[in-house]
Amino acid sequence: MRKLQHIISSRQFTDRQFLQDLFLSARHMEQDDIGRCLLHPLGGRILATLFYEPSTRTRFSFEAAMQKLGGGVLTAENMRESSSAAKGESISDTIRVVSGYADVIAIRHYEEGTAAEAARLSPVPVINAGDGPGEHPTQALIDLYTIQKELGRLGGLRIALVGDLRNGRTIHSLLPLFGLYRQDVSFDLISPPELKLPPKYIDMLKEMNIEYRESDHLGGSIESANVVYITRVQKERFSDPAEYERVKDTYIIDAAITLQLKSDAIIMHALPRVNEISPEIDNDARAAYFRQAKNGLYLRMALLNYLLS
Amino acid sequence: MRKLQHIISSRQFTDRQFLQDLFLSARHMEQDDIGRCLLHPLGGRILATLFYEPSTRTRFSFEAAMQKLGGGVLTAENMRESSSAAKGESISDTIRVVSGYADVIAIRHYEEGTAAEAARLSPVPVINAGDGPGEHPTQALIDLYTIQKELGRLGGLRIALVGDLRNGRTIHSLLPLFGLYRQDVSFDLISPPELKLPPKYIDMLKEMNIEYRESDHLGGSIESANVVYITRVQKERFSDPAEYERVKDTYIIDAAITLQLKSDAIIMHALPRVNEISPEIDNDARAAYFRQAKNGLYLRMALLNYLLS
Amino acid sequence: MRKLQHIISSRQFTDRQFLQDLFLSARHMEQDDIGRCLLHPLGGRILATLFYEPSTRTRFSFEAAMQKLGGGVLTAENMRESSSAAKGESISDTIRVVSGYADVIAIRHYEEGTAAEAARLSPVPVINAGDGPGEHPTQALIDLYTIQKELGRLGGLRIALVGDLRNGRTIHSLLPLFGLYRQDVSFDLISPPELKLPPKYIDMLKEMNIEYRESDHLGGSIESANVVYITRVQKERFSDPAEYERVKDTYIIDAAITLQLKSDAIIMHALPRVNEISPEIDNDARAAYFRQAKNGLYLRMALLNYLLS
Repeated sequence: MRKLQHIISSRQFTDRQFLQDLFLSARHMEQDDIGRCLLHPLGGRILATLFYEPSTRTRFSFEAAMQKLGGGVLTAENMRESSSAAKGESISDTIRVVSGYADVIAIRHYEEGTAAEAARLSPVPVINAGDGPGEHPTQALIDLYTIQKELGRLGGLRIALVGDLRNGRTIHSLLPLFGLYRQDVSFDLISPPELKLPPKYIDMLKEMNIEYRESDHLGGSIESANVVYITRVQKERFSDPAEYERVKDTYIIDAAITLQLKSDAIIMHALPRVNEISPEIDNDARAAYFRQAKNGLYLRMALLNYLLS
Repeated sequence: MRKLQHIISSRQFTDRQFLQDLFLSARHMEQDDIGRCLLHPLGGRILATLFYEPSTRTRFSFEAAMQKLGGGVLTAENMRESSSAAKGESISDTIRVVSGYADVIAIRHYEEGTAAEAARLSPVPVINAGDGPGEHPTQALIDLYTIQKELGRLGGLRIALVGDLRNGRTIHSLLPLFGLYRQDVSFDLISPPELKLPPKYIDMLKEMNIEYRESDHLGGSIESANVVYITRVQKERFSDPAEYERVKDTYIIDAAITLQLKSDAIIMHALPRVNEISPEIDNDARAAYFRQAKNGLYLRMALLNYLLS
Repeated sequence: MRKLQHIISSRQFTDRQFLQDLFLSARHMEQDDIGRCLLHPLGGRILATLFYEPSTRTRFSFEAAMQKLGGGVLTAENMRESSSAAKGESISDTIRVVSGYADVIAIRHYEEGTAAEAARLSPVPVINAGDGPGEHPTQALIDLYTIQKELGRLGGLRIALVGDLRNGRTIHSLLPLFGLYRQDVSFDLISPPELKLPPKYIDMLKEMNIEYRESDHLGGSIESANVVYITRVQKERFSDPAEYERVKDTYIIDAAITLQLKSDAIIMHALPRVNEISPEIDNDARAAYFRQAKNGLYLRMALLNYLLS
């Protein structure tokens, strides 16, 4: 696989070896961090986080990663309202100016395709940190890394994807990665009818020859799952509040549900959660979501290091 | 005293030796900063400032301290409105995720008790940077450090606390520290009747056997004070604007008042001030409030270094 | 020229040698950045950006400069609304406190004169990053540096200043610098009648014996220009929206206009642009505005290094 300049879509990761190298690098980052022996290969390098839609946790994760590698950060958490956007500047001008100050740009935008547009214009690497209902490729890398770290493998898996599969961009970014491990992965797609996985992703699964089943209830699926990945129903994606209220609590993973899970299954969530996972299971060893969040730090360190060195 | 993991309440400081060690460390930080020979013991370490109530000065003080020690910062000045809180996330989830990215968290919150709740859940040190009308323990350390640095002692003192003693959390955090120096400290508590020191703090003074007098006017008290500590009447703590207007300018330290002060007294204020101290006395050598603010930088450097090394 | 403590007005730069030294330093900063061999002379030093009027690009430029030199940053992008200003604190108190935490302060304010006021009170260097319709001296330095870098000289120039000359503080700051190169520089001042250069700047040109012509149309001037510097008509400076609408698109540099320009002319703009420059000319080699923006990084590195070392 050619060296990647920008990270826009998880479909760019077409090579198992690339992923394994990246995951190994993330492991080393974690060990060096724990051992307090991080080198600072990105000293004097600058990351700009341009967030047109706020997300404290994603922003923090990127900014912590950059600083742990010795780099600096430029933060804009409310690009939509503040400053140059308000003065009428186009996003392409913003990118061209900021790329003069920063050595890498992480952009989150409310519109699908904006990160790709930014990448076309930028002389420095652009990382898509979520573009509306589009993609969130670094989250997909984190998810895959978490599965491998938790379960020791990426094949031989039955994965239940639960919740808002229509708008869940983390899901949309994760699916293509399994094309690399298609032999023995199968998906249970569990969602309310109005939040089903869009046809283009169903087609993708078919093309990749990946087995899947669609359902609107948890029972009958999660008993055999190795991974239960549940997504937040995102209020901000609904134009009709009544529709949101109707579907938001359709699936809740609680202690009763966990009794049905395999003893070595893991429960994942990209966070923040609202009611989808009851806090009563937070101490269950299978609850992997906080470890998943922390993996984001090390995976992003590995990725920044890859892009800039 | 056992090594502290979190800094939540000034009641945790039960040992004069701990305070003296910390103050000595703060002095060294200052000397190294002036001499431009700071080492960077916290390189690769990250401070997250989670402010649910904005405070540029406190945030800046922590963030400057961390960076002068070589560490990085993650800033969230408007946690209340922006991002994950808006998405419905609980504070406990926020802390668990952020503690995966940061090595220490400074939290300011509008509700008493939130910092303690955060500390219970956090694997990394949590510092209470003010929790509503509750505590502000690092300010108390700064105040004590300032008194010692300015006057050369912490005993043999008459201290006038002036202004809003009901809501002034800096005062609430400072009082317990004097339990360690009770022998010869006495307090004049000067406030309008509606802003008197709450009973639980009066009880604390009694338990500690510390002498105090309550009054509603400056005269008769401040002539013998070694320290005059005046607090801002905080508009944001009043539900009734009329009550605020009535009491806000009850006490004003101006040139006329300073004529009554001892020549070696000091005037303290946690800042920001509104009208409580007239700018006409800023150049009076007894006006210690800007030096007090600067001491915050060095004290917080000493504290971060203590917690993380 | 005496060592400058604060950077408030471009009228402080009275010495060609100072400018040439600064420009040489900026060049070295750029070479070291490209060669990834930046030293970090400002390690442990802190820049505070106090922006009472948001400007992501200017803030980023200063913050990137400081971090590339190894320093840290304290960011306040919305000083006007947030925090201590809201609590009623005066700007002089803010400066005195922040100067206890930061080693240099870059301030942007909506009122002319505020930066100068801040400098009077501050024990650490203050940089005016724009004060309302007043000055923006570092932009002037960047502009002059860009002209010299692009054209190889600062004399023998015909410079067309186009657009809002009444409110354009970048123009107001740039003009005095040409007093140092007055021998053979001339200006074409092209603006709608209501946005003409204010009399005090006209007087300045006369005093400096610099040739100028005023006009309200592009034709007849730009054919002979070595530099075409066009400014954004700033919506935020108009009290009457109708007046803004009437004049905002008076001058537009597009492909047709560039046909009239000299082959070795350059087109400058302090950015952000709205419609003043058509994106169709962005790839024209004479379009210098993105290079001008990038020069800001290196010029500000040179300036921070000068002030702090």
